[in-house]
Amino acid sequence: MKNQQPIGFIDSGVGGLTVVKEVMKQLPNENIIYLGDTARCPYGPRSTEEVITFTWQMVDFLLKKDIKMLVIACNTATAAALESIKEKLLIPVVGVILPGTRAAVKATKNGRIGVIGTKGTVASGSYKRAIQEKVPEIKVISLACPKFVSIVESNQYHTSVAKKIVSESLFSLRRQHLDTLILGCTHYPLLRPIIQNVMGETVTLIDSGAETIGEVSMLLDYFSIANKKNPQARRAFYTTGSTLLFNEIANDWLAPENVDSKQVILGGEK
Amino acid sequence: MKNQQPIGFIDSGVGGLTVVKEVMKQLPNENIIYLGDTARCPYGPRSTEEVITFTWQMVDFLLKKDIKMLVIACNTATAAALESIKEKLLIPVVGVILPGTRAAVKATKNGRIGVIGTKGTVASGSYKRAIQEKVPEIKVISLACPKFVSIVESNQYHTSVAKKIVSESLFSLRRQHLDTLILGCTHYPLLRPIIQNVMGETVTLIDSGAETIGEVSMLLDYFSIANKKNPQARRAFYTTGSTLLFNEIANDWLAPENVDSKQVILGGEK
Repeated sequence: MKNQQPIGFIDSGVGGLTVVKEVMKQLPNENIIYLGDTARCPYGPRSTEEVITFTWQMVDFLLKKDIKMLVIACNTATAAALESIKEKLLIPVVGVILPGTRAAVKATKNGRIGVIGTKGTVASGSYKRAIQEKVPEIKVISLACPKFVSIVESNQYHTSVAKKIVSESLFSLRRQHLDTLILGCTHYPLLRPIIQNVMGETVTLIDSGAETIGEVSMLLDYFSIANKKNPQARRAFYTTGSTLLFNEIANDWLAPENVDSKQVILGGEK
Repeated sequence: MKNQQPIGFIDSGVGGLTVVKEVMKQLPNENIIYLGDTARCPYGPRSTEEVITFTWQMVDFLLKKDIKMLVIACNTATAAALESIKEKLLIPVVGVILPGTRAAVKATKNGRIGVIGTKGTVASGSYKRAIQEKVPEIKVISLACPKFVSIVESNQYHTSVAKKIVSESLFSLRRQHLDTLILGCTHYPLLRPIIQNVMGETVTLIDSGAETIGEVSMLLDYFSIANKKNPQARRAFYTTGSTLLFNEIANDWLAPENVDSKQVILGGEK
């Protein structure tokens, strides 16, 4: 039965877990398989070609697991590879940029939206283009925050170091009169309380990953492949890096889920 | 060009204008055609068969206008007719119930969601079923508010009569410890400030129509039929009832849009 098949999630590391957290809340009946390319994280500073190659390696791994839908739970990979992957796969493929865009366009009242993301995502101009294709008048201010992913991957997102780096990185954005800020990297929701504190309560933060689950849910309904009865959903986690560090972050973030990840090797070493 | 074709909206009356308001904000480039069956409003107390017949008459009218997508911007008609219409049409068809459901499931923290709608919508059990198919543990408390549509259609939604009726109607819901309330009728957002006041600031109101535009936007992207450059979007409005009253409400709600509706006759008199 198609609806029993898992949904596949890929990310450069642990960031996509913020998307999985929303699946567990909004679509608890869905079986899922997650793959984080922790060993080669971050993707942000890599060339587009490299990101495309790595992303396809992850996709190939999940296709063998018979997934019914693919979620590219990584903004950098979405910006680089969504179109080509969507074109070639027969299953629905969802990226995180358009859902974040739509939510921001819906949320803004003053027409000034900020976007923070990796170097790769910001350089691609994907958010700015997608927003202005919808509403040309909206002003989009983008900022690369290259240090944020490392803070999360090294499990330092609760520390005072995180506070200092976030505060310094977002300094220039605070004068931009934004009413909406897109967290354009799935790692960033782990820093959400700090980011909200720095930007102030009047700025609406858009979690691109959480918004993506709205699209996933919609497509499951639209193609009639939702899993409607499955009280014991199966969730499998794979990482290309240390399972120890992955489990530590995953269990902190997804509690009470008990994550016991497996290591896989992608690419050349196959 | 497919992307230049209009999106069609149907409603039992003026309620769907709350959905159009969101289109104007989130998708200002889209040409639209709206048809409100004001002469036969409300649909809420009618039999399912009758609602299906009337809805198909509206759909037939819009199909002749070469729409690229159909939005059933009426909860009663969605509950009664979405499935059969979606099955028979070749263009994407969107109803308002699933988008409202998804937004509510995302918003709730305590797992207690209220739903208010017409008699027909509440009797169909559509919201409750859709919510619990996603997350079985969520408690759904539904309440029919049969007087609300008439308040709106008679342009009394700013009055003290509206306040009194809303307050009395929602009395029983206030003890239900809801943290989320679905406005399960597209007329209700016109009463939103009053409903929010009665329910209290801690209850998140879900506007099923506004949420629907997220789905519309998603499907336009998914099928690559979004209108990306169209600074002079065309918006045409039709009503089966009085154009005078329709224009009055439409111009109040959609300002600064200048609505000049045309009257059409559906069904027997064709």
